[in-house]
Amino acid sequence: MGRPTAAVVGVGAERGLGAALCRRFAAEGYHVLVAGRTPEKIDQVVRTITAKGGGAVPVPTDATQEGDVIRLFDRAMAPGDGLDPADLVVFNAGNNRKVDFRNVSAELFEDFWRVGCFAGFLVGREAARRLVPLGRGTVIFTGASGSLRGKPGFAQFAAAKAGLRMVSQSMAREYGPLGSHAAHVMIDGGIEGDRLLSRQPDLATQRGQDGLLGIDAIADTYWQIHRQQRSAWTQEVDLRPYRESF
Amino acid sequence: MGRPTAAVVGVGAERGLGAALCRRFAAEGYHVLVAGRTPEKIDQVVRTITAKGGGAVPVPTDATQEGDVIRLFDRAMAPGDGLDPADLVVFNAGNNRKVDFRNVSAELFEDFWRVGCFAGFLVGREAARRLVPLGRGTVIFTGASGSLRGKPGFAQFAAAKAGLRMVSQSMAREYGPLGSHAAHVMIDGGIEGDRLLSRQPDLATQRGQDGLLGIDAIADTYWQIHRQQRSAWTQEVDLRPYRESF
Amino acid sequence: MGRPTAAVVGVGAERGLGAALCRRFAAEGYHVLVAGRTPEKIDQVVRTITAKGGGAVPVPTDATQEGDVIRLFDRAMAPGDGLDPADLVVFNAGNNRKVDFRNVSAELFEDFWRVGCFAGFLVGREAARRLVPLGRGTVIFTGASGSLRGKPGFAQFAAAKAGLRMVSQSMAREYGPLGSHAAHVMIDGGIEGDRLLSRQPDLATQRGQDGLLGIDAIADTYWQIHRQQRSAWTQEVDLRPYRESF
Amino acid sequence: MGRPTAAVVGVGAERGLGAALCRRFAAEGYHVLVAGRTPEKIDQVVRTITAKGGGAVPVPTDATQEGDVIRLFDRAMAPGDGLDPADLVVFNAGNNRKVDFRNVSAELFEDFWRVGCFAGFLVGREAARRLVPLGRGTVIFTGASGSLRGKPGFAQFAAAKAGLRMVSQSMAREYGPLGSHAAHVMIDGGIEGDRLLSRQPDLATQRGQDGLLGIDAIADTYWQIHRQQRSAWTQEVDLRPYRESF
Repeated sequence: MGRPTAAVVGVGAERGLGAALCRRFAAEGYHVLVAGRTPEKIDQVVRTITAKGGGAVPVPTDATQEGDVIRLFDRAMAPGDGLDPADLVVFNAGNNRKVDFRNVSAELFEDFWRVGCFAGFLVGREAARRLVPLGRGTVIFTGASGSLRGKPGFAQFAAAKAGLRMVSQSMAREYGPLGSHAAHVMIDGGIEGDRLLSRQPDLATQRGQDGLLGIDAIADTYWQIHRQQRSAWTQEVDLRPYRESF
Repeated sequence: MGRPTAAVVGVGAERGLGAALCRRFAAEGYHVLVAGRTPEKIDQVVRTITAKGGGAVPVPTDATQEGDVIRLFDRAMAPGDGLDPADLVVFNAGNNRKVDFRNVSAELFEDFWRVGCFAGFLVGREAARRLVPLGRGTVIFTGASGSLRGKPGFAQFAAAKAGLRMVSQSMAREYGPLGSHAAHVMIDGGIEGDRLLSRQPDLATQRGQDGLLGIDAIADTYWQIHRQQRSAWTQEVDLRPYRESF
Repeated sequence: MGRPTAAVVGVGAERGLGAALCRRFAAEGYHVLVAGRTPEKIDQVVRTITAKGGGAVPVPTDATQEGDVIRLFDRAMAPGDGLDPADLVVFNAGNNRKVDFRNVSAELFEDFWRVGCFAGFLVGREAARRLVPLGRGTVIFTGASGSLRGKPGFAQFAAAKAGLRMVSQSMAREYGPLGSHAAHVMIDGGIEGDRLLSRQPDLATQRGQDGLLGIDAIADTYWQIHRQQRSAWTQEVDLRPYRESF
Repeated sequence: MGRPTAAVVGVGAERGLGAALCRRFAAEGYHVLVAGRTPEKIDQVVRTITAKGGGAVPVPTDATQEGDVIRLFDRAMAPGDGLDPADLVVFNAGNNRKVDFRNVSAELFEDFWRVGCFAGFLVGREAARRLVPLGRGTVIFTGASGSLRGKPGFAQFAAAKAGLRMVSQSMAREYGPLGSHAAHVMIDGGIEGDRLLSRQPDLATQRGQDGLLGIDAIADTYWQIHRQQRSAWTQEVDLRPYRESF
C-alpha cells in the first residue's frame, strides 16, 4: 500500500479553512490535492506544505464546472507513483453575504446556489462514483448554521447550504452501508480566516481570544471524523466558539 | 373595498393540488390568477371555476423565468375593475422523481432546483416586493418531507425543497413583523392527484380510502393559514394521510 | 348520534387558553368537560359557557394524579343522556418560569416534569386506551418553543415540554393508522392571558396590538386541527404573533 | 498541576459504554471515578484499569438520588493527593425497552424519566455548580435517536431522552461562554455491549462486523469532544454504525 491521498475542494487564502485542512491532512501523511479557483492562492498553500516536507499539488478547479470536478477526481483517483487513490474528500466551497431579500437578484441567488450547493453536488457525485465501488472513503461537507435556519438577509445563503446538507444526508443514507462515509460539519460562528478578517479587521479583537473559530481547531474535527471506526460514524456535528450565542 | 385576489403558481391538471387551491380560493370569493406552464391545463381549471360562478383567469407562467413571474405579479397587483390587489399567493411548483444519485446529471440536479427552489425564490421575492409595502398578505410555499430529510434517490428533490424552506423561513422572520405572513406546508405522502395516479393507477386502491392526501383536504389547511389572525400565525405545518408511516 | 363531547385538561383563569378552547368547542356544539385544578376557576368557565346556551360541566382534576385522569375519562366516555363519548381531548397543563439552572432544586425540576410531561402522558395514555378502540378521536397537546430548544434558565421547562412532544409523536405514529389523531401545537411567544398579564400588566401595551398570542386565535387552530379530514392530518404546527422574533 | 480527574456516571458491565469510557480516560492519564449502581460491576471495571496501571476508584452511586450525586461531586472535586479536581464528567445512565403505550404504567414512565432525565439533570446541575466557577470542564451526555424522535413503543424512552437533551442545550448556551463545555452525543443503533447482547446473543452475528456500535469507537468520540479547543466546540454529534438505516 502506498501513501494516502486527499482532495480538498474550495481552498483559498492560506489563512482559511481550506488551507488548514490541507495542512492538517499533509501533516498526517497524506498527499493532498489542493483544489481552488485562484492559482496564486493554492500555489501558496502547496508551497507551505512542501516547505515542511509534506506532499501537495495545486489543482486549479472551478468546482461549479462539471469538467473541472471530473478532472480533479481523475487525478485524485490516479495520483501517481506510490500514491493510493484518494480516500478523503472535503467540499469546502461557499459564499456568504447578507443581502436584503428584496434586493437579491436572480443572478445572485443562482450564484450562491452554484457555488454552495451545485458544486457540492458535483463533488459528492464524483466521490460517490469513484469511492463507493471501492467500498471506502470519507466525504465531508462544510455546512453552517444557515444549513438549518433561514435568517433575514441570508435566504440566498441558507437555501444553498440547506440544499448541500440534503446532498450529504442522501449520500450518507445510501453509501454508508456500502462503506463510504458522508459527513456534514455545521460551522456556527465567524471563522478566524482571511475572508472574514479582511472585511472586519477588528473582529478578532472584539470577540476576544478564541471568540472566532480557529481554522486548525476546525480541521481537527474533520480529521477525527475521517479517523472514526466504521462502527460509530458521525453524519452531522456542529462547531462553534465557546462564546458564541446560539 | 373590492373583491380579493389570489395568485396560485404551479397549477397543472385539474385533479391536482394547484387546481384544488384555485377552486377553494374561488369558492371563498377570491378572484384567482391561475398560473401554470401548460395553457390547456390552466384554461380547464379556469373553466371549471367560472362554470360554478367563480372568478378566475389563466396566466400562462413559467415560474423559472423572472420575466414571467414579474408579469404575473404586475397583473396580480392590478387585477382590474372592482378587484383588490392580491393578498394571497401560493407557490406550488415542483418536481419529484427517484433517481440513483450516481446517475443524477448536472442538468437534472439543476432542473429540480430551478423548478423547486429558484422559482419559489422568484415568487417569494416578488411577493415581498409587492405585499410588504402594503403591510399585509399571505405567501404559502408547498414543501414536502424532503424539505427536512435527504433520502437515497432523492438528493435532487430534497436539495431543492430544503432550499425553498429556507426562503420561506427568511421571509417569515423578516416580513412577519411588517405584516406579511410567510408559511410553509410540508406534505408528507402521496397526493391523490393526476401526477401520481397517472404513473401508479392502482396506488389509491392499494392505500385504501384516505390513504393518499386528498387535494381538497390539503387546500383546506392552506385556506385556514390564510385566515389566521395575525396574533397567532403559523410558519410551518405538516400534513400526511392518517395511515402514513413517518 | 348524540351531541359530541370534548375534554379540555388544564383549564384555569377565564382569560386563558384552556378557557378559550372550552368556549370555542362549546360554540361549535360540543358538550365540554372543563378540567382543572381550581374549582372556582373552572366553575366560572362553565358559567360563562352555559350563560350563552352552551353545554359544559366542571371536572376538578389534578392531571398529575392518575386516579383523577382516569375518572375524567370515565366521565368523558360516558357523558350522559344524548351525549356521545368524547372524541376531542386537549392537554393544556404546564408551568413556565425562568430559574437559574444552578438554583433549580430537584423538587422544582420534578414539579415541572410532573405538570408538563407526566400529566400529559397520563392524559395521552387514557385517550389512547379509550379512543383507539373506537378508531377515532383527536388528542391535541400544547407545546412551546421550549419543546424544541433549551434556553438558559429554562432547562426545567424545556425538558418537560420536549418530553411531552415525544409522547405526542409516539402516539401519532402508532395510533394515526388506527384512526386516532394526535397533534402538537407549539406556541411561541407570550399568550395574552391572565397568567402572563397578572405578572407583567404592561406587557400587552408594550408589545402593541396583536403582539401577544390571542387566546381565541390560538383556539381557532386547535379547532381546525380537529376538523381536518383524515387524508391530510397535521402532527405539528407552530403559532406565534406576527411580530415575534424567532 | 496534578493528574487530571474524570467522573463517569452510569457505569455497568465491563463490556458496556460506561466501562469503555472509564478505560479510555484512564488510558489518557486520567484518574477516573467509576460511578454506578452495582458495586460488583464498578469494582470489576476498576480492577481492569488498575491492572493495566491506570488510576480508578469505584463510587457506588444511584444517580437518581440527589445525595449520591452530591457526594460523587464532593469526591470528584477533591479527589486526593496529586489529583486535580475533575474537569471531565460523563452522564451515561439510562434504560431502554419497547413497551406498548397503552400498557405503560405511571410507574414505568416515571422510572424511565428518573433514570434517563432527572439523574442527568442532577449530574448536570452539580457539574455546573462545581465547574462553572472554575471556568473550565467538559460535561457530556449520552443521547439516542429517541432524543429527537418518538417512535411507537418508545414514548417513555424518548420523553426522557428528549428532556435530557434540553438539559444539555440549556447548559451549553449558558455555560459555554463561561468556559464549561456541555455536549450531547446521540447514539443511533445497537451498542455492542452486555446489555444488548445478553438479551439478543445472536444480534452481533446477524448485523455483521461493525454492524453494532463498538464501545471503544464511541468512547473515542467522547474523548475527542473533551480535547476540542474552545474556539471550535461541538454541542451535538450523532454516531451510528455504517450499516445502520436512518
